[in-house]
Amino acid sequence: MQVFKVVLELPEWVGKVLENAPSMYPTIEARMQLVVELSRRNVQYETGGPFGAAIFNVQTNQLVAPGVNLVVSANCSIAHAEVLAIMLAQQRVGHWMLGSSGMSPYQLVTSAEPCAMCLGAVQWAGVGSLVCGAREEDARRIGLDEGLKPTHWVEGLQGRGIGVIQDIGREEASSILFQYHERGGIIYNGR
Amino acid sequence: MQVFKVVLELPEWVGKVLENAPSMYPTIEARMQLVVELSRRNVQYETGGPFGAAIFNVQTNQLVAPGVNLVVSANCSIAHAEVLAIMLAQQRVGHWMLGSSGMSPYQLVTSAEPCAMCLGAVQWAGVGSLVCGAREEDARRIGLDEGLKPTHWVEGLQGRGIGVIQDIGREEASSILFQYHERGGIIYNGR
Repeated sequence: MQVFKVVLELPEWVGKVLENAPSMYPTIEARMQLVVELSRRNVQYETGGPFGAAIFNVQTNQLVAPGVNLVVSANCSIAHAEVLAIMLAQQRVGHWMLGSSGMSPYQLVTSAEPCAMCLGAVQWAGVGSLVCGAREEDARRIGLDEGLKPTHWVEGLQGRGIGVIQDIGREEASSILFQYHERGGIIYNGR
Repeated sequence: MQVFKVVLELPEWVGKVLENAPSMYPTIEARMQLVVELSRRNVQYETGGPFGAAIFNVQTNQLVAPGVNLVVSANCSIAHAEVLAIMLAQQRVGHWMLGSSGMSPYQLVTSAEPCAMCLGAVQWAGVGSLVCGAREEDARRIGLDEGLKPTHWVEGLQGRGIGVIQDIGREEASSILFQYHERGGIIYNGR
């Protein structure tokens, strides 16, 4: 009888980075710094696309789970950084919804604005807020497709009780995208 | 050092259903019949939400990979039926893109129209077409949130070379949604 199983695992270097990382993340800037560091290493070690993400608990200021893009290395178009962070955080919390949005202490911090898929995923995760580094136009500039997104997605998320904070460390986060492009990184659009 | 790993596995009954299933799926209706059967069993065995999906190769008429909703059972809001089918199909094919859309022989058949997240996922998967059973309003009728979707998503997918075929077996597919609702199935919206 066939078994249908998928295993997604972050590269070993993520654990090493976290061993030397702060134990507390009291500011949005500190959280973004970790996430951009994850995106930078992912490019450097050639383990995936130029994106990092993480979920933090903004009441305890602790990291709940990290994520990096694994599309090419895992042969999985679903394996965006935000998706990994959400899956790992829910596994750790032991629930399919991190919190009730509007009062959820869980914050998703991502090195770039979410693509169409991750924008959807954010709505199901149970996060209370979303913090973004690079803009979607920065990703488009290196040829990465963002997919069909509703025009007013920021207002749409806010209307659902999910706060959105943009342009945190945008310049540094974008620079990783350009590094990836310059190294000839695979542009893994679905067409 | 911490290891960050997620394992998603379809319930054992899926393999058993497939042992007794046809080896070829020459019509859209036959493909939908399998997918609706998966959604029905998922409700019956209480292994997840009322949704099934599968990817077929329309050149060989063979099943490539099945998927069912595992949100509640796997504690994972990402684990929609379409996502599982895409991940399993890409693992089987050994590539992060099933085919180049427009000429891809891979077809995603789903028992209900995709939510916002799965609509995004469809664009990255490398499928040439999408076949849907129930309409999104059928899912909304039992209280399931579909998320922020662009108004003209069907035309949007078509403009990207992904054909969309709606209302195949809609009545039967919708009846599974209502069965789930009547049994008091968990409505796992992210808020």
